[in-house]
Amino acid sequence: MAVAEDQDLKQYCVEVARRAKTASRQLAVLSGAVKNEWLRRGADRLQQQTEWLLQENAKDLAAAPGFGLTEAQADRLKLSPERIAGIAEGLQQVAMLPDPVGEVMQSSVRPNGLNVQKVRVPLGVIFFIYESRPNVTADAAALCVKSGNAVILRGGKEAAHSSKAIVDVLNQVGAEVGIPPDAVQLVSTTDRAAVGHFLALDEYISLAIPRGGEGLIRRVAAEARMPVIKHFSGNCHVYIDRAADPEMALQITVNSKCQRMGVCNAAESLLVHADVADKLLPPIASELERQGVQLRGDAKVQELVATAVAADEEDYRAEFLGPIMSVRVVDSLEEAIGLINRDGSGHTDAIVTSDLAAARHFADAVDSAAVMINASTRFNDGAEFGLGAEIGISTDKFHARGPCGLNELTSYKYVAYGDGQIRQ
Amino acid sequence: MAVAEDQDLKQYCVEVARRAKTASRQLAVLSGAVKNEWLRRGADRLQQQTEWLLQENAKDLAAAPGFGLTEAQADRLKLSPERIAGIAEGLQQVAMLPDPVGEVMQSSVRPNGLNVQKVRVPLGVIFFIYESRPNVTADAAALCVKSGNAVILRGGKEAAHSSKAIVDVLNQVGAEVGIPPDAVQLVSTTDRAAVGHFLALDEYISLAIPRGGEGLIRRVAAEARMPVIKHFSGNCHVYIDRAADPEMALQITVNSKCQRMGVCNAAESLLVHADVADKLLPPIASELERQGVQLRGDAKVQELVATAVAADEEDYRAEFLGPIMSVRVVDSLEEAIGLINRDGSGHTDAIVTSDLAAARHFADAVDSAAVMINASTRFNDGAEFGLGAEIGISTDKFHARGPCGLNELTSYKYVAYGDGQIRQ
Repeated sequence: MAVAEDQDLKQYCVEVARRAKTASRQLAVLSGAVKNEWLRRGADRLQQQTEWLLQENAKDLAAAPGFGLTEAQADRLKLSPERIAGIAEGLQQVAMLPDPVGEVMQSSVRPNGLNVQKVRVPLGVIFFIYESRPNVTADAAALCVKSGNAVILRGGKEAAHSSKAIVDVLNQVGAEVGIPPDAVQLVSTTDRAAVGHFLALDEYISLAIPRGGEGLIRRVAAEARMPVIKHFSGNCHVYIDRAADPEMALQITVNSKCQRMGVCNAAESLLVHADVADKLLPPIASELERQGVQLRGDAKVQELVATAVAADEEDYRAEFLGPIMSVRVVDSLEEAIGLINRDGSGHTDAIVTSDLAAARHFADAVDSAAVMINASTRFNDGAEFGLGAEIGISTDKFHARGPCGLNELTSYKYVAYGDGQIRQ
Repeated sequence: MAVAEDQDLKQYCVEVARRAKTASRQLAVLSGAVKNEWLRRGADRLQQQTEWLLQENAKDLAAAPGFGLTEAQADRLKLSPERIAGIAEGLQQVAMLPDPVGEVMQSSVRPNGLNVQKVRVPLGVIFFIYESRPNVTADAAALCVKSGNAVILRGGKEAAHSSKAIVDVLNQVGAEVGIPPDAVQLVSTTDRAAVGHFLALDEYISLAIPRGGEGLIRRVAAEARMPVIKHFSGNCHVYIDRAADPEMALQITVNSKCQRMGVCNAAESLLVHADVADKLLPPIASELERQGVQLRGDAKVQELVATAVAADEEDYRAEFLGPIMSVRVVDSLEEAIGLINRDGSGHTDAIVTSDLAAARHFADAVDSAAVMINASTRFNDGAEFGLGAEIGISTDKFHARGPCGLNELTSYKYVAYGDGQIRQ
């Protein structure tokens, strides 16, 4: 790209970010009623415009082979009346969630009579970078605006027409109900350099959220001058303690691995206590194999399961996202915890046990975003945890960890009410 | 520095960080009783070792002129029996605060019976970079360990002997009561390059906290690959609304500016509503002048206050940290809010008013860490807000905003208790 062009692009990005910042000031004091009216009317309007949305989506679908999309990727891109109804339903659900802005999270009256309140407020401007699913456009806009933030959406070029159509509908409705004009802006260029420009604008942008492959997330984390909510891979474990109920151990292991294999909270690694491995591992292995899962294990595992192949060290750290599972036999709870903290990814790890002390120690010592006691790893999810909609799952520990809903898109301020207090 | 030396230094930093990470795993599950015993016994031992601490401190004081320290800086460096008693008292106070680790911050039972708990946990390893006051060494160690974190302390070279003596005492007591050996590590080199090496080690270090001048904070923020709690300058405002009580307006303005001038929550800018400026500004200006404060103002201010000099745009954004105050007359509450959000630093801003609607709107619209309604800006402080000890004041919005106490040094995890739940 020529230097002059890059200067133009940079100027465009600064302008978008500056407008978003102005909108964020207005959004911070906007009533919940207006935000909810926008979400509900937006849901209706999207459904009314189904035909036009399908026409715009058809342009993306026609271009998909040219972008080298696989059939599965093109399918994720595809809209249908049912999928549009699903998007609308998502907006309705966000409208029903309580408004996080203004919540008094804590308060105390100091000895001098000062009433100190910790009040939830929006972060400001969120830069959301995602790949090709058009429904994410509507979800992200809904969650950001409901939490009082302006959002800059940077979707994949593969969904450019679909995303623009959705944002156009939402902005049309926004103008009708009184949402500030630049609350939701879709970046109009698909030039990759624009992302770099936005990531330097920490003066205007409070938070970047990349949603996509590991390459995208690493690039954003490396370049961003503002905080980033990151979601790295999930090598989730199930640990079967010596005090595990055999049937529960089987159900939880199989559900954690097989209920949906291609997702971050699916289990990739199984640890079994040596005292019960002889008895519990063979039936679990049979059921996993019946469901098409290949086991890769240590010597002891291969001894107990004829079809298991030898695992290498990489396998114990891998996120397979498919029909492979690593298995190890461990001598103690401590060994299991040590392996999970060393080889896991701090995402979701489960224990199956009827031993209270083991359960409590596992919950305390495993350093992961979610620890499951006698439950499937698949429950680490905003909806399953009762957060309402989620914008992603954080594998960070700072600010937000685990599923991120509306509250994770907020900050707070202290408001202190006095009647003339001065400091002595 | 030769390449080989830098490799050695880097290796040293990696080793310190790795050991801190190991210690942090042990600290995360350490009982509150052990941590409190360490703090209380540490307080006693520091007082018992007063004589030796003064000897070590004398070495720093002797070297101070060589480091080019001013007399005021050397005074901050100086220990005395009273100051050591103050450090010990600080440790006792941290011992009395409730243990943040393990607190159930929220919980819900899902329709399927899964009990989802959001549990407070330590962040992990904190890298704390500070300048020359030796008491900060003890404060930071106490707060980090009490919140279950390992800490890497990087103090100024000016206080090297004093800081080492304090850490030696705390580590001696730590070994007696069962604190992990590397919970508190003082960086043994004063080589500035070490800071850069640590800031790259996001694999081990969860958070960096720089405490010192703006140059240090900017350097850390620019280089750090982990999150940073930043504390930039405070251009705090007092806005006198048209509905202000005159005596309260005077008291709050003078206290905010003069009670202690060299601190971040002292007021630097005064805004007065045009409807009351004629009546209120002259007596306030007189009292400020009596206390040695020079006023720099707009034309209207100069008209009302003969001694006021003309302010330039820089003055309205400045953190003077001394006897100068910028003053403007504004036509409306909205104008005041706009100026505060534009020229302020998002630190602490106060309104004086008896108008409820004005107070509420100011609290909602001013985008600052602390908003004071009819109270001095000087109350934005961990102790005054009831947080107990504080490790600093954050001017960020992400994770921690305003005074940072124990809770701001923590993260959380989700722990879900089930009895065999699997996902459908």
